[in-house]
Amino acid sequence: MEKKRFTLPIEAGCENIVNDIIKKWGADAVRNSDGTEMDSFFENLGLKIYATYFPTRNDQEWAKNNRNELQQIYLLSDRFTAKSETLEIDIMQSYFSEQFEIHDEDSPHKYWQVIDRTTGEEVSTSFWNYDSNTKKVIIKETKLWHVYTVGFLAKQIWDVTQMYNHLTNDWGDKHHEMPYDPAFPKTRAHILEDLESWLVNHPNVNVVRFTSFFYHFTVVYNQHKQQKFGDWFGYSASISVPAIENFKKEFGYDLKSEDIIDQGYYGTAYRVPSPAFKDYMEYQQKFVSDFAKECVDLVHKYKKEAIMFIGDNWIGTEPFGEHFSNIGLDAVVGSTSDGLGIRMISDISDVKYREVRFLPYFFPDLFNDDNDPSIEASEIWIKSRRALMINLLDRMGYGGYLSLAMKYPKFVDTVTLITDQFNDIHNKTENTKVSFLPIKVGILNAWGKIKAWQCNRTGHVSGRKESRPYTGILEALSGMPFDVNFINFEDIKNGVLKDYNVIINMGSRDTAWTGGEYWKDAEVVSKIREWVFNGGAFIGAGAPTACQHNGAFFQLSDILGVDKETENTINFSKRDKLSEKKHFITKHLNIKSIETGFGERGVYATSEQTEILGYDSIEGIQLATHTFGKGRSVYMSGMPYSEINNSIVFRSILWASCNENNTDAVFSDNLFVEGYLYKNKNLIAVLNNSFDTQKAILKLQGKEYKVELSAMKLHWINL
Amino acid sequence: MEKKRFTLPIEAGCENIVNDIIKKWGADAVRNSDGTEMDSFFENLGLKIYATYFPTRNDQEWAKNNRNELQQIYLLSDRFTAKSETLEIDIMQSYFSEQFEIHDEDSPHKYWQVIDRTTGEEVSTSFWNYDSNTKKVIIKETKLWHVYTVGFLAKQIWDVTQMYNHLTNDWGDKHHEMPYDPAFPKTRAHILEDLESWLVNHPNVNVVRFTSFFYHFTVVYNQHKQQKFGDWFGYSASISVPAIENFKKEFGYDLKSEDIIDQGYYGTAYRVPSPAFKDYMEYQQKFVSDFAKECVDLVHKYKKEAIMFIGDNWIGTEPFGEHFSNIGLDAVVGSTSDGLGIRMISDISDVKYREVRFLPYFFPDLFNDDNDPSIEASEIWIKSRRALMINLLDRMGYGGYLSLAMKYPKFVDTVTLITDQFNDIHNKTENTKVSFLPIKVGILNAWGKIKAWQCNRTGHVSGRKESRPYTGILEALSGMPFDVNFINFEDIKNGVLKDYNVIINMGSRDTAWTGGEYWKDAEVVSKIREWVFNGGAFIGAGAPTACQHNGAFFQLSDILGVDKETENTINFSKRDKLSEKKHFITKHLNIKSIETGFGERGVYATSEQTEILGYDSIEGIQLATHTFGKGRSVYMSGMPYSEINNSIVFRSILWASCNENNTDAVFSDNLFVEGYLYKNKNLIAVLNNSFDTQKAILKLQGKEYKVELSAMKLHWINL
Repeated sequence: MEKKRFTLPIEAGCENIVNDIIKKWGADAVRNSDGTEMDSFFENLGLKIYATYFPTRNDQEWAKNNRNELQQIYLLSDRFTAKSETLEIDIMQSYFSEQFEIHDEDSPHKYWQVIDRTTGEEVSTSFWNYDSNTKKVIIKETKLWHVYTVGFLAKQIWDVTQMYNHLTNDWGDKHHEMPYDPAFPKTRAHILEDLESWLVNHPNVNVVRFTSFFYHFTVVYNQHKQQKFGDWFGYSASISVPAIENFKKEFGYDLKSEDIIDQGYYGTAYRVPSPAFKDYMEYQQKFVSDFAKECVDLVHKYKKEAIMFIGDNWIGTEPFGEHFSNIGLDAVVGSTSDGLGIRMISDISDVKYREVRFLPYFFPDLFNDDNDPSIEASEIWIKSRRALMINLLDRMGYGGYLSLAMKYPKFVDTVTLITDQFNDIHNKTENTKVSFLPIKVGILNAWGKIKAWQCNRTGHVSGRKESRPYTGILEALSGMPFDVNFINFEDIKNGVLKDYNVIINMGSRDTAWTGGEYWKDAEVVSKIREWVFNGGAFIGAGAPTACQHNGAFFQLSDILGVDKETENTINFSKRDKLSEKKHFITKHLNIKSIETGFGERGVYATSEQTEILGYDSIEGIQLATHTFGKGRSVYMSGMPYSEINNSIVFRSILWASCNENNTDAVFSDNLFVEGYLYKNKNLIAVLNNSFDTQKAILKLQGKEYKVELSAMKLHWINL
Repeated sequence: MEKKRFTLPIEAGCENIVNDIIKKWGADAVRNSDGTEMDSFFENLGLKIYATYFPTRNDQEWAKNNRNELQQIYLLSDRFTAKSETLEIDIMQSYFSEQFEIHDEDSPHKYWQVIDRTTGEEVSTSFWNYDSNTKKVIIKETKLWHVYTVGFLAKQIWDVTQMYNHLTNDWGDKHHEMPYDPAFPKTRAHILEDLESWLVNHPNVNVVRFTSFFYHFTVVYNQHKQQKFGDWFGYSASISVPAIENFKKEFGYDLKSEDIIDQGYYGTAYRVPSPAFKDYMEYQQKFVSDFAKECVDLVHKYKKEAIMFIGDNWIGTEPFGEHFSNIGLDAVVGSTSDGLGIRMISDISDVKYREVRFLPYFFPDLFNDDNDPSIEASEIWIKSRRALMINLLDRMGYGGYLSLAMKYPKFVDTVTLITDQFNDIHNKTENTKVSFLPIKVGILNAWGKIKAWQCNRTGHVSGRKESRPYTGILEALSGMPFDVNFINFEDIKNGVLKDYNVIINMGSRDTAWTGGEYWKDAEVVSKIREWVFNGGAFIGAGAPTACQHNGAFFQLSDILGVDKETENTINFSKRDKLSEKKHFITKHLNIKSIETGFGERGVYATSEQTEILGYDSIEGIQLATHTFGKGRSVYMSGMPYSEINNSIVFRSILWASCNENNTDAVFSDNLFVEGYLYKNKNLIAVLNNSFDTQKAILKLQGKEYKVELSAMKLHWINL
């Protein structure tokens, strides 16, 4: 079997071992580790050569000599309570002075805002001033006992990624790299010059790995040098005075600090975006893609490929946004630890190839004598492999110090197995897609396509207790043969429902994921009701359609057959209990209560037709079904990923879309074993998603297939 | 020791045993059981005689002959989704046809409302009609896929209490008693006539026990003869066309069905009351108290006493309302099972005496060979006794079938012990109050005084999982030597804070108990901030001051030092962990996690000064303290009643009000033992709140007292 499709991180000192590992892992490309240069030994192995380039911090001399063109950020001061008529606010009180410097060269009265958070009113500039000596904002004639904040501009005087590495590895007085901003025309021109000179000086590099383009996702440290706020999707560190001025020219209105700061919530992905925030995202995507295209064109001019790392300075690139294709990238590479992350990379269109850099990094935190890094690598592979069966990536790789990984032979063997299976999938399927069931699934939230596979999470590897009940559903879906898409409420209004079989709305109340006030929109609820009534499937998880309004909390409780007890209906009797009938969704399981994680509590049946499939006396309803006309609905209070919940999600979608009897669906009697049908190849791929030997009987197309699979096995059945 | 103060329920057939039990329990009064008449044997025992009278159902001939003057109710139909242009709504679909009959004699177009619940708009009467043949409302030209409801008037054709007994005891074709309404002048006159004739015919009765006056709390059954909705505080079953018309004369505006129906939530105590709902309560209290006064005056004319049962038809009497004293009652009697219930009776003013009818009833559900009813009686006594130490009731009693209770000698002995202790407290304290600590506590919610000791509950004995985290705090307080009052947001604005040392705000978000939108009121938050800053104590439990507004969820998070993660701040790092320092509130306990019941989840520290005393990795912060100027605050995520939580509440109030070192506070080293100081009597009462022998050391006034108490013991120490 020919093995290839692997990008190997290399470093000086690995010359002796590298040939062996190239063979074992099937490497056909090498890349330098972060911060190291490639030497000629590696350049002459006959492999493709990737090299990392940082457009906005590659030239630190430029940063030092043009401090007025450093990147900026909008920050909100702490909340201060007015205890006397004059209130002094130390705006940097809870920020890290080595990361930020107050930006007061451009009029604070023009670009900053003081807000009375008790009333929500902006304080007129005639009542406040910034004192550049004390670095405080002084508010006069306050309303006593009201809470005030100052939204202000700061300069970013330390690049986030370098700061993290610097502090973590205790780099002492090593120079703090500072990011400069292409929103300034002079810097923009310089970046192109610097890139061209870099291209000229790196003739042997085949692939320029942009890490990434211009604006880093938001990471803010506090006065104790600890992370205070981190938003992998955040736009607040992409703002600047020139961006504000250019925005005004394009959109015709002033962007205010509050439009970005958003009461201190910084417009995270969990927030239903305001019109101004969406305009700003649009502005920044256009700006970023236009200038990134210039960079990529330059790369192409030197006959090299351009690949973008999804992460770090990726803000504004939005791989699922409308401007992404304009950049003209050859490829993307992203880091992941699960199937959901795989799909976020593999579902990107308009590039020639897609690559994953699997976790874990070859770093000492996991590669040490107290830990077996092969376990994490295996777990990640098992989750990722499911998603690769659905939408295969072109290449894979790892990151970190190769010399460190080499010290762990079990890890080396595990990656050998992983690369074997990765190549096996490629070779067996030969770019033929798995056979999809005729079920088009739409994940409905306030964002839609632009946050495809990024829902209900705070970052690309986040696993917060609040997220897991919903990312578990996405994780399950990432490895299922359904056409999964991401839609928003405008799409609903524009008639998209006719193209879908299943709509899923999931998350907590008053978040972008469920949609909040959008559920007050009569057009939205009417269109969904009509569609479900005529046969659509509606799946809700957590607080779907939640918005306290006119006597209901779940606005589509008529469809769902459940609502949440917000204590408005506490006086109504509830007699919820598990349905005594077997139901398609759970009949294969022998459980009454379901693992719901930090899912919604207090959900109860609003209809006598509601069938309760999971119930807990404290939590309330965990899983229930209901019908509405020809349509079906499933409610789940939370579904953190597990083998059991994976099967519940699969069967819920089949049941809700009336596909219980679809003969192309692959049913396994063992929760750890899943099968994938490739009709055009007459193949079934069978996965053992566990570390133990598993026996299973697979049923599909009216036939049964008995299998016995060793740990992690990928097995092929010829039909 | 002289024993008295006990009202004995008697029945024919108990003549042989009654003298023995009178002696054992110290009975000085007898009353008939519900539905039984007293015979002359009991009338001649030389005891005071109570007899039950039902003003609005005593004369069922009147009810039959005046069906048009039966009591009415506002009901909301189910929510119907418009699937075609014409929508027919079977308004009685989910109601019990033996309980209610549609009231259509008075114009449905005038008194009913059809509402589009998708938009919240009322549907013009030109688009709907009621068809009295089909008993349906037909809506024309609907907005497709919108949800519609009909709010309509029904007649109450079965008295709730009799219905319950009838159905529970399977009384077959026994006449269904129907309640008539004194809002009709003819019926009002008849009630007085009937009462007078009853008084004339019952010359031996000393005390007329009104059970109660006119309007029953709301209990609504569904089509399956099961309870659908029950609100012990509910006003929806007191409405009628004459009430609506009289209301208009007094208040100058039309009361609409929606004002009572409240989107289907029926203005329960959990709802922040609307201005119209409050006006209606005021109207009904005035009406009820005026007419009740006429009834009581008649009782007095016949030289009898009038006592009111707090429950059943008590709506509009509001013992803590402004019109109650106008009734001129001699006494009140209420049913209870805990200390909180005791205080709801014992804190009533403007009557000569107050009586408790303890649970359990002598009914076969608990008095059977599979159950030991003495256990429930003991548990109720242990909880109630704490509250009686603080505000003693004048009398006690039980209800039900005496003959049944007699069959359980252990129960008889238990009540003997209880009555011994009840009399002992009276005799030892001789109406001297326990010595209060100088701490005035205000429970702040949207209702204030009118719902004193009725907060965070759905009825007088409710123990729902949603309530317990907060009623546990009230239960703890009911037996503590603090001056506890109940205040609302108007009181705050009117300057009441100066009289208080501690304010408590507790419950779930968007309920009357925490206050919802009231927390957007700048005057409210400013006044509380100023008061705390100058030394006030603010205790919050659950979602105190919760209202998503201007960047905070807990509006007084600056005081509390905590807020709840509503996923707006999910991207902010949290490093909450238990404080390593010992704190006054918990230093006596050896626990890290606290039993919080169904309390609030996801609360985190917003200040570095917040001290976390209880933490759970899933729930979040359970108990925390913070300071604000000279003031102190305590946050509790939930405090269901237990010995541990009782001690946490006690010490929290002492700490928050800076009374840790108050030498009159009684500290016990055993959580099951509490002491009560009577300075004027030089006594300490010591309670063993358990069924085991307990040893304890009590500390107060700089001294220590060692005690050893048998199970349930009430012990007195002479200082």
